[in-house]
Amino acid sequence: MSGWVKIAGLGPGDEALVTPEVTAALAEATDVVGYIPYVARIAERPGLALHASDNRVEIDRSQHALHMAAGGKRVVVVSSGDPGVFAMAAAVFEALENGPAEWRGLQIDVLPGITAMLAASARAGAPMGHDFCAINLSDNLKPWSLIEKRLRLAAQADFSMAFYNPRSKSRPEGFVKTLEILREECEPERLILFARAVSRADEEMRISTLAEATPDMADMQTVVIVGSSRTRVIERDGAPIVYTPRFTPDEDQG
Amino acid sequence: MSGWVKIAGLGPGDEALVTPEVTAALAEATDVVGYIPYVARIAERPGLALHASDNRVEIDRSQHALHMAAGGKRVVVVSSGDPGVFAMAAAVFEALENGPAEWRGLQIDVLPGITAMLAASARAGAPMGHDFCAINLSDNLKPWSLIEKRLRLAAQADFSMAFYNPRSKSRPEGFVKTLEILREECEPERLILFARAVSRADEEMRISTLAEATPDMADMQTVVIVGSSRTRVIERDGAPIVYTPRFTPDEDQG
Repeated sequence: MSGWVKIAGLGPGDEALVTPEVTAALAEATDVVGYIPYVARIAERPGLALHASDNRVEIDRSQHALHMAAGGKRVVVVSSGDPGVFAMAAAVFEALENGPAEWRGLQIDVLPGITAMLAASARAGAPMGHDFCAINLSDNLKPWSLIEKRLRLAAQADFSMAFYNPRSKSRPEGFVKTLEILREECEPERLILFARAVSRADEEMRISTLAEATPDMADMQTVVIVGSSRTRVIERDGAPIVYTPRFTPDEDQG
Repeated sequence: MSGWVKIAGLGPGDEALVTPEVTAALAEATDVVGYIPYVARIAERPGLALHASDNRVEIDRSQHALHMAAGGKRVVVVSSGDPGVFAMAAAVFEALENGPAEWRGLQIDVLPGITAMLAASARAGAPMGHDFCAINLSDNLKPWSLIEKRLRLAAQADFSMAFYNPRSKSRPEGFVKTLEILREECEPERLILFARAVSRADEEMRISTLAEATPDMADMQTVVIVGSSRTRVIERDGAPIVYTPRFTPDEDQG
């Protein structure tokens, strides 16, 4: 069998959220590459080599995967969540575009997974039940000015918003600024959810408002969801439900 | 066992994209409710009642599910894709909020699924590999003016965009207007993908540009993805790859 690369999404953490397509790819693989904690989710077996690497080496890891596939290996590149959402798929294609011409002949597939924002949304109810956007708050790979522009326009569009990588240890000030911008653009009662480690043992879901939210409610394990102006809470015994109605009346255009 | 409601996402069509969590819920269910083509995907078995209904009756269907669960049934409400993305979760919560108080005591869970836009993105490469938004182009439940506002702001934010329900038979003019708006806001070379019936036998993927796109490239089975200004094509033997790089330089802010 000739080599291939499958870029696979492992979902947010719970094995019950890994698709059969991804499980089948892992069963056929000779090699798995990925960031250390994601490779740690893969069971060892004879004939399977696990190649775990640190973060911020996405291009090196992608080149390694493509190089092994060109040599006949069956390589699964693992991401958490969905590989196409702030994860490994774009990195592999960057490496492919800038790599040797022979790599373009490889079979390369992306296998979708349950992305963190939709796992978080499901746990909360349906806060992304209407039009929404997803923004990576990390400014490693783009200027902060672009993040600020997108935040303001998304708020003006009255999207529900999901934020990935909201707050790194090395640059925690980005999320401080994010909350300041949102408070300028949105009303204080706007709902904001902090969904940490969804579907894992240490899952935490906190429902707050822009007025009451503080930067320390988020870390790099957290997906933050900001509702639209129409996002609501249903109170009940047990966890409240947060959802965005499907209907927007004519006179209410956010 | 007391009744419950699980609002489950069946993914885009391929059974290999249904999560084990959803499969397990269906195995425990006494009743399944949903739109006719989605219920048709569920295998019949003794002890399972299938309740298929037409579209545009989402609230009736939700009330039916909640009513059966209150009577002790184990009810799975099926959506295609992810139930929290333009699907049944918000409808069930609308029915819950406006229904009898006893319904608020029910166990209600949302089980995420692979949403159409991410299945389409995976098939194309990684066009949503950077910040993105999702817009339902149907104006059944919101005014067209809000759709237009969101389209313009999303283009100005330089999001990749995914459009659900782009073109209904009864109101095809919405997608005509969408293309006109995008041509006003974006350059003619902007990539636009028409992903039809992804993961199903009749899957079709078409890569075009705003200059060349025509309204008839979309129907209600199609998810449309418009790239950001940085979305690129890698040409090769076989299907080209469309992806959005992770990196945005300082001088290029869309």
